[in-house]
Amino acid sequence: MTHRPKLTFYFEFASTYSYLTASRIEDLADTAGVELIWRPFLLGPIFQAQGWDTSPFNLYPAKGAYMWRDLARRAARLGLPPIVRPVHFPQNGLLAARVATIGRDKPWGLDFVRGVYDAQFARGATISDPETLAKVLNNLGLDAALLLDQAASDQRIKDTLRQTTEDAQTLGLFGAPSFATEDGEIFWGDDRLEDSLEWAMVCDSKPVDIA
Amino acid sequence: MTHRPKLTFYFEFASTYSYLTASRIEDLADTAGVELIWRPFLLGPIFQAQGWDTSPFNLYPAKGAYMWRDLARRAARLGLPPIVRPVHFPQNGLLAARVATIGRDKPWGLDFVRGVYDAQFARGATISDPETLAKVLNNLGLDAALLLDQAASDQRIKDTLRQTTEDAQTLGLFGAPSFATEDGEIFWGDDRLEDSLEWAMVCDSKPVDIA
Repeated sequence: MTHRPKLTFYFEFASTYSYLTASRIEDLADTAGVELIWRPFLLGPIFQAQGWDTSPFNLYPAKGAYMWRDLARRAARLGLPPIVRPVHFPQNGLLAARVATIGRDKPWGLDFVRGVYDAQFARGATISDPETLAKVLNNLGLDAALLLDQAASDQRIKDTLRQTTEDAQTLGLFGAPSFATEDGEIFWGDDRLEDSLEWAMVCDSKPVDIA
Repeated sequence: MTHRPKLTFYFEFASTYSYLTASRIEDLADTAGVELIWRPFLLGPIFQAQGWDTSPFNLYPAKGAYMWRDLARRAARLGLPPIVRPVHFPQNGLLAARVATIGRDKPWGLDFVRGVYDAQFARGATISDPETLAKVLNNLGLDAALLLDQAASDQRIKDTLRQTTEDAQTLGLFGAPSFATEDGEIFWGDDRLEDSLEWAMVCDSKPVDIA
């Protein structure tokens, strides 16, 4: 098997722009010949470390109003359904992130991730509600009760998610989506997805020095 | 003369990403057949209204560290010189913005804008220093002493700049660069420049409804 460059995709379920990335990163990575590693993490602790108790899109109303409009435009460009804004924003994505952590190395993992985002931003569902996640899991032919029970009780899963969040903070991540290449380069935002894939390919073949 | 769609480019001299846009927007607008209107404004009063006394890139160090790295990468992609980080950031762009306001409808206007950005981010110069601006003006064959005197004393110029900043705030702008189309659509960030030009062209030919 030939060597393929790797790119790690860090996302938070409450993040609107992570939704855009989740909808398209697998296809783009395949086309680029890049091995996709994906990691759910929690932005809450990182925002708290910056002194924020909610999303900056709520703290700064002009920025928030712009974000929802920009999201609608970008979703339209990508051929996604019209955005249905959830009643509460940002939502608590802890349970969803724990289920996704169970699915990190499972064939259904990314389908679950996309299913949760679709429920949240194309149908306005409440993703902290286990019923919402159960529907997504059932639609994938999985045992929802078993997986939700594991997500709520398995200490190794909780620890793995906590460790991923700490790793993200150590890497200097401050928002989502973010992308990390094997040589330690960080890219932030759905609008840097293409750049990060290109960097992963280039740094795999030759040294990069721009600084 | 045929009708051309318009796009208004709002920028702040201290803004790093506005530098990237200033380096390329004129060519891109020409190619797209879009009439470019450009407006220097001040982000300081807008940041202050959000409770910030400096750039968010200083308030949030992880975001700031990322920005400088991202700027270096993007500058390299655009074929710009390596970034030379000014000692003080953000710089006071008031005098530069006043001179640029004098040049808004002059043939030398955009050359002055690009010259100031180049001095600041490719050579690390202090743009609040009249000497720096005098060099840029002299390089363009202009009467630097006359223009700097006008910038410091002409009340109409000061009022025009203040009005532009108020207009930007009324439009909901919260950062720079920002772009406004004739139908009132706002785009924020150098990475939305292409989207904004495309929107300007499309909205000029047919109604757009995505919301």
